[in-house]
This record gives sequence, C-alpha cells and structure tokens, in this order.
Amino acid sequence: MELVDLTLFLTGLSLTVALDNGLLRTPPMGWMAWERFRCDIDCTYDPKNCISEGLFRDMADRLVEDGWKELGYEYVIIDDCWVSKQRDDQGRLQPDPTRFPGGIAKLARYIHDRGLKLGIYSDMGSHTCMGFPGTTLDKIEIDAQTFASWGVDYLKFDGCYSNPVEQMLGYPQMSKALNATGRPIAYSCSWPAYLGGLPPNVNYSLLGEICHLWRNYDDIQDSWDSVQGIIEWFASNQDVLQPAAGPGRWNDPDMLIIGNFGLSVEQARSQMALWAIMAAPLIMSNDLRNLDNWATAILQNKAAIAINQDPLGIQGRRLVQEKSHIDVFWRPLSNSASALVFLSHRTDMPFLYHTSLAKLNYQPGNYMVYDVFTSSTVTRLKASTDFTVSINPTGVVMWYVYPQQQSQRLHLHHQQHRKESHVRYRKPKAESTVL
Amino acid sequence: MELVDLTLFLTGLSLTVALDNGLLRTPPMGWMAWERFRCDIDCTYDPKNCISEGLFRDMADRLVEDGWKELGYEYVIIDDCWVSKQRDDQGRLQPDPTRFPGGIAKLARYIHDRGLKLGIYSDMGSHTCMGFPGTTLDKIEIDAQTFASWGVDYLKFDGCYSNPVEQMLGYPQMSKALNATGRPIAYSCSWPAYLGGLPPNVNYSLLGEICHLWRNYDDIQDSWDSVQGIIEWFASNQDVLQPAAGPGRWNDPDMLIIGNFGLSVEQARSQMALWAIMAAPLIMSNDLRNLDNWATAILQNKAAIAINQDPLGIQGRRLVQEKSHIDVFWRPLSNSASALVFLSHRTDMPFLYHTSLAKLNYQPGNYMVYDVFTSSTVTRLKASTDFTVSINPTGVVMWYVYPQQQSQRLHLHHQQHRKESHVRYRKPKAESTVL
Repeated sequence: MELVDLTLFLTGLSLTVALDNGLLRTPPMGWMAWERFRCDIDCTYDPKNCISEGLFRDMADRLVEDGWKELGYEYVIIDDCWVSKQRDDQGRLQPDPTRFPGGIAKLARYIHDRGLKLGIYSDMGSHTCMGFPGTTLDKIEIDAQTFASWGVDYLKFDGCYSNPVEQMLGYPQMSKALNATGRPIAYSCSWPAYLGGLPPNVNYSLLGEICHLWRNYDDIQDSWDSVQGIIEWFASNQDVLQPAAGPGRWNDPDMLIIGNFGLSVEQARSQMALWAIMAAPLIMSNDLRNLDNWATAILQNKAAIAINQDPLGIQGRRLVQEKSHIDVFWRPLSNSASALVFLSHRTDMPFLYHTSLAKLNYQPGNYMVYDVFTSSTVTRLKASTDFTVSINPTGVVMWYVYPQQQSQRLHLHHQQHRKESHVRYRKPKAESTVL
Repeated sequence: MELVDLTLFLTGLSLTVALDNGLLRTPPMGWMAWERFRCDIDCTYDPKNCISEGLFRDMADRLVEDGWKELGYEYVIIDDCWVSKQRDDQGRLQPDPTRFPGGIAKLARYIHDRGLKLGIYSDMGSHTCMGFPGTTLDKIEIDAQTFASWGVDYLKFDGCYSNPVEQMLGYPQMSKALNATGRPIAYSCSWPAYLGGLPPNVNYSLLGEICHLWRNYDDIQDSWDSVQGIIEWFASNQDVLQPAAGPGRWNDPDMLIIGNFGLSVEQARSQMALWAIMAAPLIMSNDLRNLDNWATAILQNKAAIAINQDPLGIQGRRLVQEKSHIDVFWRPLSNSASALVFLSHRTDMPFLYHTSLAKLNYQPGNYMVYDVFTSSTVTRLKASTDFTVSINPTGVVMWYVYPQQQSQRLHLHHQQHRKESHVRYRKPKAESTVL
C-alpha cells in the first residue's frame, strides 16, 4: 500500500530529466559478466576467469576478432564485484586495485580503441548485492561524475540494500546526474524488479522517461526452467509490458545465456528467438573464448538480430497459447514485415502444428516466409492456406514474414547453409489450398 | 494396506519360476522406440517416423553400421502401438497389418541376421497404455508362446489397465509362461512403477526372482527436470533399491534420451554417468539416423559403458550430498577399481569442489584416476591428498579409479582425444600434499 502511494506521488512530479537523448534507439547489444562469471574474485587461483581488467580485455578482443562487433554487439559491461571495498580519499568509487591495477579509465580506452563501449555497475543502496560499496543518495552525483570522467558509456544501476523510498528518489536522481555529466551514458535501471515488475507499484511511463532499459523480473540462471519462466512471466504480463517498450526504452528480461552449460541447442534457439520477439537487449553472458560453434551460430544469426533490432522498436506479443503446449508469438516489423515464433513447451517429440496466417490475424494476400534458423524460404504463401510446422520439444520455428507483392527480394541476409524447411504441407482438403 | 497383505501373501508362495537363466548378467543395452517416437502411427503423413517395421529396420541398420553393436547395444525394442486392434481368429496378438505387413517373425529374422536381438511390448491388463489390446490373465500363456514363436528375445510388460491383484498374479505368471516356452527371453517388468516403487508395496526379492529388470519410477521425458528427478528419486531411495540389483536383476530408471531435444551437452554426460553408476539398462530412445556427433560420442564412451557393464554388477550409491549442491556418487567395480561421479545441481558457473579420496572412504594408498569424459589421467593420487575438481552447472566429472600398485596400465580403453583434466591442484597447505 505504501508503495502505491509513493508511486502515485512520484508520477505527479514534474521531472526535468529527459533521457530521450538519442541513445539505444534499438535494444543494446553486447556482453556482460554476471551470469557466467558471477563474483569470482580469486585471481590467484582462477586468473583467467576472475572479475578483473584482463577478463574484460579478453572479451573485448573476442568481440572484435570473432565477428561480434560488426553484428552490433558493442557493449562490454562490468557487473558487480569490480569496486574496492573503500572509496578514495575524495569519496569516489575506485576499482579493486589488485584486479583492476590500470584503473577503469585505461580499460575504457582499451575498449574505445576497439570501437566498443564500456558499461559499469553500481547499486542504489548502501551496498551492492554482493556487499561492495553502493551508491547512497548523497553519492549519486559524485558517482555519475566519476563514471563519466572514466569514459563509461552505460550504467547498470542495481537496487539491493535500499528501500522503496530511496529507490523512488535515487533512480530519477541518477538519471538526472548522468544527464548532467554531458556524456551520453545509457542507463539501465533494476528498479522495477525490486517492486515486483507490475503496476501499480511500477510506473512504466516514468521509467521510460528516466531509463533506457530496465530489469522487470528475476535474474536469469543457467537453466531452461529459468528461461522458460522468464518467457512465461513476460507473456503473461504483456498487456502491461509490451506498450512500455519503444526506441530508447526497453524491457530487459536479462542476459542471453547461450553458450553456457544449461541449454540444449533447441532451448538456445528458443531464447534467441524470444529475445528477438520481445525487443530485448541482446547482452550475452558467456565465455566468448570457449563457445561451441552451434552457440556462436545462434548468437550471430543475422535474421534474428535484424528482427531484434528492427527500427520500429515495437515489442512483440504472444498471440496464441494452445492446449497442446504450443505458443505463437508475433512482432510487427518495419516495411510491413513481421516475425512469428512457434514455441513448443512439450517434452515428448516434434509436434506438428496446423494453422494459417489468416488464423494468426494476417490480412488476405500472398506472403513470403524466411525460416530464420534453417534459411529456407516459402514463396506465395496465401494467408488462407493451411500449413503445418514441425516444432521440436522446447524448441522454436521462427519466421520472418513479408507481403509478396511488396518485394521479391529478401529484406534479410540469407545465412550460409540452406537446410530442409520445417514446413510441411497437408494433403489437400476441400477447404484448404495446397502450396 | 490391501497391497501390503497381497505382497506378503505372494512372498510366501513357492514360485517354481527361476529367471536366473543366464540372461542379462550385465544390464541390457540397446534401443527402444517410446521416448522419441511415442505412439506416432500416421505412416501416411509421417512415414519415416511412424511405429512400423521400417523404423525398426532403420534402427537395426544404424546399430550395426554406426558402431553401436560392437559396443554392446544389441536389443531393438518395440514399445506400445505395434499391435492390431484385434486378435487373430485363434486369439493371438497380431501386429498392425498396414504398419507391420511382413509380420514380427520376419522383422525378428531381419534383426537376428544382423546379430541383434528383438524386444517387444505387451501390457498386463485389458489394454495397453495407449489403448491397444492388452494381455489379460487368461491370455498370458498364448501371448508368451506367440512372442517365442516369432523369435522375440525381450519382453517389456507394462501395467496399464490392471489392478494390483491382477498384477500380483500376472507378472509372475508371465515369467513362468516365458520360461515354459523354452526360448530365453529377457523379461522387463513395469510392475513396481505401478505400486509406487517402494516396500512394502513392492517386494524386490520377488522381483529379482521373476524379472530381469523392472521399472521403478516415472516415465522419462525429454527434459533435464525429468532426468534430475529420476536421479534424485533413485538416490533418495538407494537403501532399498541398491541391494535389489545384481547380475540378472536390474533396476531400470528408464531410457537414455541423449541425442534428442531437451538436454544440453553437460546434462547428456550427466545422464550417461549416472546410468553407469546405477548399473542401469543403457537403452537409448533417440533417432539414430540423426544424432549430433557430441551425442554419439557420449553414448559410445567406452569407459562409461565399461563401468556400466562391470561384471560384478553392484549398483552404485550416492555418498555425499553437499549444501553446495554437489553430489558425489560411487560404484565399486571388479579388480578393486571403482567409479566416482561428481554431479553439480548448480545453475550458475563451474564449481570448484575440494575433497580427497580418503574423505570419500577410500583406503590409504596411491590411486590412478582416469577421467571418463576428458580421457586425462592422474597417477599416484594419494588417498589423503586434497584435490579440486571443477564441475560445470548440471554437469559431471566422472572418474574411473584403481589402486596404483595393482596395475600400471589402464583397465579401460582410452578414448581418441586427450583433453585438459578437470582436476586442479590446490596450493600447498601444511596439512595437504601437492600432487
């Protein structure tokens, strides 16, 4: 109850901050340390994996040398556990001296020299989630200035060890302080995740004015249960969440965990597909030095990335939730195109799902379909024609769909290997046309 | 309560059946249709995957041509949905005529000609689980004779659509009827799974006398949740289950689902490792025509198979269940060897687990360790020496361990590729020796 009142109170404030500063017109892409490397600070025993400047330089090198940067993955983001247990004698945050001996400014130069951007982490509260010094209300200005002075391009502002009143004051204040530095800094707010992610506790209009993106829900873990739970929460609450997103303001279902230990190939495709549909940040947390080829192929899928980065910036929605445990998601894209994802929650065998574009609310006409993960195409698919897709357990079929008459060429890059289409055609019935 | 009385009653019977007939001195290995292909009977629409003689011939071909048979995978087992809706005019079961036009005897010849063995499915009850004709008490003898006349080598006898009294009568009666045919037929009983899998409802002494193997628990599904749930149930109840197993009598935690859609590489290794520790049947249910190389490598891992097939036939146990969500499993093997599995239930990042062989109840002395999935070896590991293993989330480290003095050579085949060992060594401490 208290929260409701506070939020209503805040909504009434005339905020002078305006984060519509041209940043993140499409969802951010990059790499972040947390899910894969957590708070590993033992550099003596685990020098290659501990949270240290070497880890971030390694990842920057990989982003540049392995084709990530040219696809749009540009942010290298430090998460918790980088900061020294003590502020310096001028009250400024400083990095742990043994793990970041060169300092953050030098690391930022290393990253900028490679055409990448640096993100950093702080916490609205007395301590970070792992117990390092946080940013209390009185430290917001100095911390924003410190980050800007180092050349930081992105701030993840967490919310452990603060109460709702402090958060209500601190998150807008940090937005204002970042703006006041004069440096364009993308601002990621964990605030709504600490308020349950939904109105009335969360005011998404306000968030869109002060933050570029925000974490709505639980931290992702390295398991399909976690990914599926996040997808389900976002779909169940899409009436609230979907309208909140747009250029410069994004819901953040958390990091991509593709390439780690807990997802099968099918499940990895499902995360990539749904994150594209949800217009989610594509921020990987994995070990770019040790990725299986299949994981790299999924994360570097140009069509999935293009759908995620569509300039209209309209978040997609779940259209259909079948009793057969098939869900259909849809996202409108520029040039009258759209994306469809057929997701199976089954755990038995490939499921043959019968539908038509008309049943999925498409207008009459002919469409061209490009299958994002097989690179196969179907031409002149009539909206009224029944078709069947074979969806693997915990997997997806993902389509980029566009009107046939509008263009004969694909708007999206084709991928290297053409494979068998997932689409099968039903035997003719009286009421359906065969392709 | 009724069940308890019935079981006690039955225990008192002097059964003349003796299934200690030399079959399955080690756990059976092979392939079974159910988990991957279920009850797909639409051969018009899905000819390559429907339950039909072609599917079993395909799998037999793959077993022979792709190296499975020489590793021990020899049974090709038909599950539900093979039978015609009607018995023949002599009251015998007959296969569906459109899907098995050549009949089962011809399929058996095809399979025998390739040095393999054929398994079939029936159900103690009025119907099979999918609603096909079952084997009622009055049909047990004729069905056993029919299967033997076809050349069947293995029967999975399910328990849908029967009550505990019928099961109590029918399962021993089928054992006797199979014996009476004179053909050696391995006998897999689903009985305990229908009684909750535990005493007093289940009498494992009796089961060991009448069945070669038995399903104790739920059907496996294509997900890590399912695999993990099965492992947990078997470990939680090991005091009852572990002594029940031995040559010719095996607990069956259900099929290997490696190569399907729901398991990550780590999780697939975990299933293989735990099935080896549990002396479980290695019966795959996957599409042998379409396996990823990594799945084949795990299923064909010679060391894991050798551990599973150890001639002593002693089922392993969970030794340790740590608060850190690491479990340690152990299985004694012939030649004073043993197997250890370190399993992580974590969903964050690789975990460094510190222990020693002495802490895992090993006698003082030097040991040689062979890492089953990396093919690396460690020599002269003193039982008292502290070591550290790095265990990936939902993954395992699996060791074959044997006394150094006994033999300088490996008892197990090395695999092709040597990789970095999972073992790391701690810095010296006063109380620990460094390797």
